[in-house]
Amino acid sequence: MRIGIDAMGGDHGIAEAVPGAVEAARTLEIPVTLFGQAELIEEELRGINRAGLDISVVDCREVIETAEAPLQAIRQKKNSSMAQGFRSLRDGEIDAFVSAGNTGALVVGGSLIVGMMEGLRRPGLATTLPTVHMQPMVLVDAGASVDPRPEQLAEYAVVGSIYAEQILKRESPRVALVNIGVEEEKGNELTRKAYALLKNAPIRFVGNVEARELVSGDVDVAVADGFVGNVILKLAEGFGLGMFKMIQDEIRQSFLSRVGGLLVRPRLRRLKNLVDYASYGGAPLFGPTSPVIKCHGSSKRDAIKNGVRVAEEFVRLDVIHRMELRLGELVEHV
Amino acid sequence: MRIGIDAMGGDHGIAEAVPGAVEAARTLEIPVTLFGQAELIEEELRGINRAGLDISVVDCREVIETAEAPLQAIRQKKNSSMAQGFRSLRDGEIDAFVSAGNTGALVVGGSLIVGMMEGLRRPGLATTLPTVHMQPMVLVDAGASVDPRPEQLAEYAVVGSIYAEQILKRESPRVALVNIGVEEEKGNELTRKAYALLKNAPIRFVGNVEARELVSGDVDVAVADGFVGNVILKLAEGFGLGMFKMIQDEIRQSFLSRVGGLLVRPRLRRLKNLVDYASYGGAPLFGPTSPVIKCHGSSKRDAIKNGVRVAEEFVRLDVIHRMELRLGELVEHV
Repeated sequence: MRIGIDAMGGDHGIAEAVPGAVEAARTLEIPVTLFGQAELIEEELRGINRAGLDISVVDCREVIETAEAPLQAIRQKKNSSMAQGFRSLRDGEIDAFVSAGNTGALVVGGSLIVGMMEGLRRPGLATTLPTVHMQPMVLVDAGASVDPRPEQLAEYAVVGSIYAEQILKRESPRVALVNIGVEEEKGNELTRKAYALLKNAPIRFVGNVEARELVSGDVDVAVADGFVGNVILKLAEGFGLGMFKMIQDEIRQSFLSRVGGLLVRPRLRRLKNLVDYASYGGAPLFGPTSPVIKCHGSSKRDAIKNGVRVAEEFVRLDVIHRMELRLGELVEHV
Repeated sequence: MRIGIDAMGGDHGIAEAVPGAVEAARTLEIPVTLFGQAELIEEELRGINRAGLDISVVDCREVIETAEAPLQAIRQKKNSSMAQGFRSLRDGEIDAFVSAGNTGALVVGGSLIVGMMEGLRRPGLATTLPTVHMQPMVLVDAGASVDPRPEQLAEYAVVGSIYAEQILKRESPRVALVNIGVEEEKGNELTRKAYALLKNAPIRFVGNVEARELVSGDVDVAVADGFVGNVILKLAEGFGLGMFKMIQDEIRQSFLSRVGGLLVRPRLRRLKNLVDYASYGGAPLFGPTSPVIKCHGSSKRDAIKNGVRVAEEFVRLDVIHRMELRLGELVEHV
């Protein structure tokens, strides 16, 4: 097994991707390949102890920036770290690809260059959200496909369920449809149609879940269209960090609460890290025939390392193949 | 002016609605009418000092429960506090109506019994969300209409803007479209079409806003379809309260942080109240020709009182008429 890492992606690029990849290679005892500008990667590697590790570098001259139009970027920048990584994935030179780069380009490139897995119409992006039980839950689709058909939501439910089972180690994961009421007939046209399909899908469907209950931890996988899923992901992120800012501002208001603030700070920091999306790392892109793991744009080395860990598990446990098998069952059921 | 209050609505019913209404009558120096089971209301009133206040009671034998199907409930329970309140509003016996009852029934009853204001195709529900500046922002539609047409979003933008200006006292409110990216071409079919309409609407349109930035306070009014808006409202509510639970759990983990927790508690409680949706109270329903204010189902007397305060301002400042005028301009512009 060999995991490929996009060294140019994300806000921090090489400075965090390279040490994260090396650390993953050491901890997981696997070979890794870094895609990006070779001389910069080599320079970064020079300061890192990598005795006994199998680390190769594929020189890529171009970089896809975060703000670039995805389709155009993937088509035109053929020598970018991302496009080259996808070609290596397609050709079997690596077994999984990890990137903190342009999400849209990752979604487009994954389908166009690597090709789509059997039984999935369109790509779906998974993300994890914190819950009060401190165990993350899975949300699919977090923004890969807007205006999906109801059948797509059933497919996302299936792949999300396998992900929760195999990677998050949930036994018989509870899958719910994000809706604006718990009753079957609630919601918009899409959710009403999707509900009917989910009832018969090869998953443990527990009905609708309102956004208020997502944080309760009573659901392992929540399914939503890419627009709604992306709104949830970003609101949770903004609200989580916003709350900590509000708390800090409040605590500063009096002497006693400032003293109290010093005492609770280590606890709050732990919680903040837990809530912080980036620290979970490793949100899989469902679609490509081989594992593609998206790390948050603000990922530091730990998040990159975590992304590689998830990628390694995807390969080792043959997760994509399990997804394809279950998607085959879905076709029979619905 | 006379404000009507649904005494039977919400989780607490008469026990909170009646004292809230009396308190509002005293503070605002206005007559109020309570709709509900007269003998129960009178009993509640007996324990309250209401010297010099004009408080009338309209006896209604039926109650629309929270879980009832809205359309059916409004049609069949003609003697419910809500249906009767709407008839009194239509007939000019009251000038505004405040209820913490079944949201769906309020939306349906408002349009069917009271009638729709000029220039608004479908009802829209507003809500306020906390921001890091501690100043709430407005979100429309928070769940009245799912699967809206793009034109509806432009209409919600107009009425939301007038609401922010007149009730929240924002000068030239910044109106944004909730989307999954800031660029004009981002989003789903609905948001792409709505964006084009919003650009030409008689509002201060500032473009797309991502859910992550809602909490930043950089926008006064955010426009979304009812499904997305309801997800945002409920996620913010669940996440806000969930965060406080997580913080409490964390603080309990060690002796020092427990001591610190005691010192910061008054500050956190203040913040919790601020974030707590119910404490804002008074989310207007845009649609009926006269003001209808929805209080959260968990409203206590302060929230009811706040709802009456918002209703009184709606009437006094002739807000509905201002909305109709501006909606007329919208038709000319787009």
